[in-house]
Amino acid sequence: MQGFIGELIGTFVLVLLGDGVVAGVSLNKSKAQDTGWLLITLGWGLAVTMGVYTSGFLSDAHLNPAITIAFAINGTFPWAEVIPYIAGQMIGAFLGAVVVWLNYFKHFEATPDPEAILGTFATGPAIRSTGWNLLSEIVGTAILAMGVMAMGPNNIVDGVGPIVVGIIVTSIGMSLGGTTGYAINPARDLGPRIAHQILPIANKGDSDWGYAWIPIVGPIIGATIAAVLYIMVL
Amino acid sequence: MQGFIGELIGTFVLVLLGDGVVAGVSLNKSKAQDTGWLLITLGWGLAVTMGVYTSGFLSDAHLNPAITIAFAINGTFPWAEVIPYIAGQMIGAFLGAVVVWLNYFKHFEATPDPEAILGTFATGPAIRSTGWNLLSEIVGTAILAMGVMAMGPNNIVDGVGPIVVGIIVTSIGMSLGGTTGYAINPARDLGPRIAHQILPIANKGDSDWGYAWIPIVGPIIGATIAAVLYIMVL
Amino acid sequence: MQGFIGELIGTFVLVLLGDGVVAGVSLNKSKAQDTGWLLITLGWGLAVTMGVYTSGFLSDAHLNPAITIAFAINGTFPWAEVIPYIAGQMIGAFLGAVVVWLNYFKHFEATPDPEAILGTFATGPAIRSTGWNLLSEIVGTAILAMGVMAMGPNNIVDGVGPIVVGIIVTSIGMSLGGTTGYAINPARDLGPRIAHQILPIANKGDSDWGYAWIPIVGPIIGATIAAVLYIMVL
Amino acid sequence: MQGFIGELIGTFVLVLLGDGVVAGVSLNKSKAQDTGWLLITLGWGLAVTMGVYTSGFLSDAHLNPAITIAFAINGTFPWAEVIPYIAGQMIGAFLGAVVVWLNYFKHFEATPDPEAILGTFATGPAIRSTGWNLLSEIVGTAILAMGVMAMGPNNIVDGVGPIVVGIIVTSIGMSLGGTTGYAINPARDLGPRIAHQILPIANKGDSDWGYAWIPIVGPIIGATIAAVLYIMVL
Repeated sequence: MQGFIGELIGTFVLVLLGDGVVAGVSLNKSKAQDTGWLLITLGWGLAVTMGVYTSGFLSDAHLNPAITIAFAINGTFPWAEVIPYIAGQMIGAFLGAVVVWLNYFKHFEATPDPEAILGTFATGPAIRSTGWNLLSEIVGTAILAMGVMAMGPNNIVDGVGPIVVGIIVTSIGMSLGGTTGYAINPARDLGPRIAHQILPIANKGDSDWGYAWIPIVGPIIGATIAAVLYIMVL
Repeated sequence: MQGFIGELIGTFVLVLLGDGVVAGVSLNKSKAQDTGWLLITLGWGLAVTMGVYTSGFLSDAHLNPAITIAFAINGTFPWAEVIPYIAGQMIGAFLGAVVVWLNYFKHFEATPDPEAILGTFATGPAIRSTGWNLLSEIVGTAILAMGVMAMGPNNIVDGVGPIVVGIIVTSIGMSLGGTTGYAINPARDLGPRIAHQILPIANKGDSDWGYAWIPIVGPIIGATIAAVLYIMVL
Repeated sequence: MQGFIGELIGTFVLVLLGDGVVAGVSLNKSKAQDTGWLLITLGWGLAVTMGVYTSGFLSDAHLNPAITIAFAINGTFPWAEVIPYIAGQMIGAFLGAVVVWLNYFKHFEATPDPEAILGTFATGPAIRSTGWNLLSEIVGTAILAMGVMAMGPNNIVDGVGPIVVGIIVTSIGMSLGGTTGYAINPARDLGPRIAHQILPIANKGDSDWGYAWIPIVGPIIGATIAAVLYIMVL
Repeated sequence: MQGFIGELIGTFVLVLLGDGVVAGVSLNKSKAQDTGWLLITLGWGLAVTMGVYTSGFLSDAHLNPAITIAFAINGTFPWAEVIPYIAGQMIGAFLGAVVVWLNYFKHFEATPDPEAILGTFATGPAIRSTGWNLLSEIVGTAILAMGVMAMGPNNIVDGVGPIVVGIIVTSIGMSLGGTTGYAINPARDLGPRIAHQILPIANKGDSDWGYAWIPIVGPIIGATIAAVLYIMVL
């Protein structure tokens, strides 16, 4: 139960701050408007750090179903906890998106562009291409999982771990995210996409469900590849 | 008494460097002019880190009345110290704003825009709307207080804590601050606003006292919510 | 053998994320397009940090033939390991460039400029001038090697070392890299240049082999100078 | 003697990387050209971190005559070492500027603006005004010295100290540096100004010696104020 609560709180904070920075950059009249990709990648990295700080004393702070599955595969996380963890992650991600909407409520009203609004909630590809988009999510999440699994052997001093996770995500965003917007986390994409579908957001368009499976399947494949690699190398 | 002095010094440094970065970005002929939101959010985060480093060996380095109240509510800070702490925070914040004015004296003279000048001292909303502005300050400060209260259980290694507080504030600024400019601290807003009212600043306009209660009430509500949540979860 | 594998993995991650950030900034329709030098220097610094995290528990995480040679010269690394280390670095760098190409495949197709495409793989000078370009690579790599060799005496706490290496590379990129694009690493430049030559990349031009010796010879000279200096001072 | 060597090496690295980032941003055809104030403040902060890493195991890594004097005043540094320390700092700063010139040699040739060239070596005010410029250097250096003197009581874990010094300088640059370009260090300004005077730099103008006393006197006054304050508080 504590694991469920930890994942819920951490993923709530992660999505609130992560989707929040996209809202700040994308929505009209925001003081952060048009600050660009550097703010988005730094802001998302800090969002992950914040999610881990606010949950790491309650759960393992995966905050990502693909990471939970990868750790179950490489034998360092019990399979029995996988469902409660993913449930907490999905609920937290959904609630985080709801609070982003409330925080920027007047700015959604001021933004007539439905694509900008969807982009605040869920990821979308720069160039739509099923195979290459999927590959990009696989590559990004494999590097994420490699980085996170390397943290144990690196024996990181107390309290610095959440900063390292933020560094990992910032690096992936800056270097690989230009293609699909680096979901690299099924909950981060699906939870807010459901919120986008359900909530009465001003000026919203459709939720692009045709793309929604890619940021679910890609990350799970990528994390699995990293988990297998990890077993082989160590 | 040491607590009062610590909070005074730390909040002085925090506001000097925090309002300083806004002055650098906003005032005419400054070498930092128009560097934008990224510099403001990074600069404010570093300002908080600096405030904590320069005061943390004297007081608990709250540097924020809402945080002081939240820690009193969750039982980890004595109520008897609340008044001296807030007094130190208010005086420090006022003095910090005075020195920002002196540091950028010639640049205030070179800036004819009264809104830019007020923005150097106090926060203001991107879209004026009492309810939504208040909500934004509540959300931001709740996350701030959650982050700060999570620092204890995270057991952070010596000397890294002030960096973590700076990370928390940078993240909130980048992700949630686009709406109201994230006061998330009654002293940070009220102290400099009083300075703006009193000082003979070149080209200044009115101090927007109609808005001044929001960055006081919002943060106190937000921090209180986080404190109650913290009691429930731990 | 473990050293070979560690260097291969680490340099793979380093080049994937390092060349990746250049691809993100340079290629058409990328979400990171035109974010500029700040993203490139931060992204490369994080790429190095990531490379060290993902390999440092397997090898010494040099990820750079010039560093391997410098440590052999100053007596802190066995000469017998130099060849397997450099082999791992070269193979890893080549493979990293291959995955950058795959990750941004559709964006290479969308980019008609062969110079932008080569720049994603290998470095090139801002002003072509053999002597001065060579000098620039010597200076940058000497500082890199000085920084890396200073890490031992600085006695850095567990898990923070990879962050320090990233800081070193970021600093060199920001401060000295404006001239040649700071290869400061023969494998980082040669491996991806070979990939550029071999792979059927859309819209690619020639691989500028006339310049290719400078980012090999310059770094080796620079690191050697630092190694000798280190022996003299300590 | 070791103290002299340490300060020489550290200040060499500090000025090479610090003036280097200004050169990268200011000189024509540099890949970093026009990246702006954010790169300069981050680059200078990292330059200081690098200076401290590469010298802190040889000397106390003051790298700044004002800091050396402040520590002598507050009784934590022997007066007998003040002259060798400052000598090392001055020589290191001069040599650092020489290597910046060599690294960017072709870019100096490509830059016809003498003001941009002087700005690469020494600081200058955004609005010339003796009293206010002096005040700005006093305020900046007082905060620098407060920050550095607070490091002891903060009991920072091994190897993180140089990062904290970089944070201090980055914060001062971002928040207070828009006025005079934050010399906050007599050696950092005077050493390179002498280099500018002596070296046969292409397209250079005069070395603005009328201003040169401000970044010497201001920092010494500022650091002294902080030292006295420190004695009073602790």
